[in-house]
Amino acid sequence: MAIRYPNGKVYEQTQNESPKIKRQARKDISFSNRGKSLEDDLNETNEFYVAQGVANIYKKPVPIQIVKVEYPKRSAAVIREAYFRTPSTTDYNGVWNGYYIDFEAKETESKTSFPLKNIHDHQIKHMQAVIVQKGIAFFIVRFSTLNRTFIVPFQIIEKAWLEMDNGGRKSIPLCIFEEHAEELQLGIRPRIDYLQIVKKFVANL
Amino acid sequence: MAIRYPNGKVYEQTQNESPKIKRQARKDISFSNRGKSLEDDLNETNEFYVAQGVANIYKKPVPIQIVKVEYPKRSAAVIREAYFRTPSTTDYNGVWNGYYIDFEAKETESKTSFPLKNIHDHQIKHMQAVIVQKGIAFFIVRFSTLNRTFIVPFQIIEKAWLEMDNGGRKSIPLCIFEEHAEELQLGIRPRIDYLQIVKKFVANL
Repeated sequence: MAIRYPNGKVYEQTQNESPKIKRQARKDISFSNRGKSLEDDLNETNEFYVAQGVANIYKKPVPIQIVKVEYPKRSAAVIREAYFRTPSTTDYNGVWNGYYIDFEAKETESKTSFPLKNIHDHQIKHMQAVIVQKGIAFFIVRFSTLNRTFIVPFQIIEKAWLEMDNGGRKSIPLCIFEEHAEELQLGIRPRIDYLQIVKKFVANL
Repeated sequence: MAIRYPNGKVYEQTQNESPKIKRQARKDISFSNRGKSLEDDLNETNEFYVAQGVANIYKKPVPIQIVKVEYPKRSAAVIREAYFRTPSTTDYNGVWNGYYIDFEAKETESKTSFPLKNIHDHQIKHMQAVIVQKGIAFFIVRFSTLNRTFIVPFQIIEKAWLEMDNGGRKSIPLCIFEEHAEELQLGIRPRIDYLQIVKKFVANL
């Protein structure tokens, strides 16, 4: 079913996607005709990992506050009033080879830097706690206009975040990604084989 | 807001709870006036663990398929049509001290055995995959009428599940829990200190 935004854009939401990222993704499609969003690529990749027994990593459902549910006779319960809630954690987590894996995926249309406003305070706090518990935390960041995708250890993002809090810049320049992150090449099966880089992170622990 | 069930019961859902477990919980309250559901106890416990920096474990949001969203001017987006979906995973996961933790919580009113119909095929498959990835998987089962709560390694449940598939019994007798599971004592802070038992599981790996 189509939803009309206040700005006149039509929005269609399919199963399992978060409205925020999809809104972004539709924009990408209409501007650049490039195809799948980062979220779609990651869902496909995680399904591949699960199917192959490589890892067990899932996107968490979007948290919803349910206010009103109808129970029609002879058909499924229908939620009639509900609201989006702010997640307390990151979007993706799971297990690979004994390691707890936790990450967040972000897209930006900027060609030069990744705006830190894309990241929320609760995500930083959550990842700091994950690191304390010896989990593996990282971001996957796509510069969608450039069609370049990076996997970034949490510590790089945290450093920029703390610097911003002390009056530093509000974005991370592309060159920092080129220097301190690993670029992910898109494939077919899986679409984004980010675990290959996670293995490198683990080897350097 | 109250919802009337076909059977005439009134149902109120508050933030963050799954309708299935809560339905069970309300029943408990009206029948026995015993108070909090297992889900409430576990949410309180996990919040305590996070606040104290002991572990980072969360209940996953209930997966919802969103069909229709309204974007009223000057107020939050309202979901107007959505449906409950079947989760692909268990309800709780996270990290403690480098270990991936994954579990499911179940309540039964039976005084003598835990009916295996409370467990879904996808939960068994998911936990099997977690074990392959060297995660820690278990169930927390409450016999609510008896007010007894057990933490059960996944392998015990899996064994009964496989036996049922081969014509064995459709429930696990209480005595199996008494013999092969650990009973959890309720406390105040935290409400159910299940990590103490997880530590034992890990020590025996």
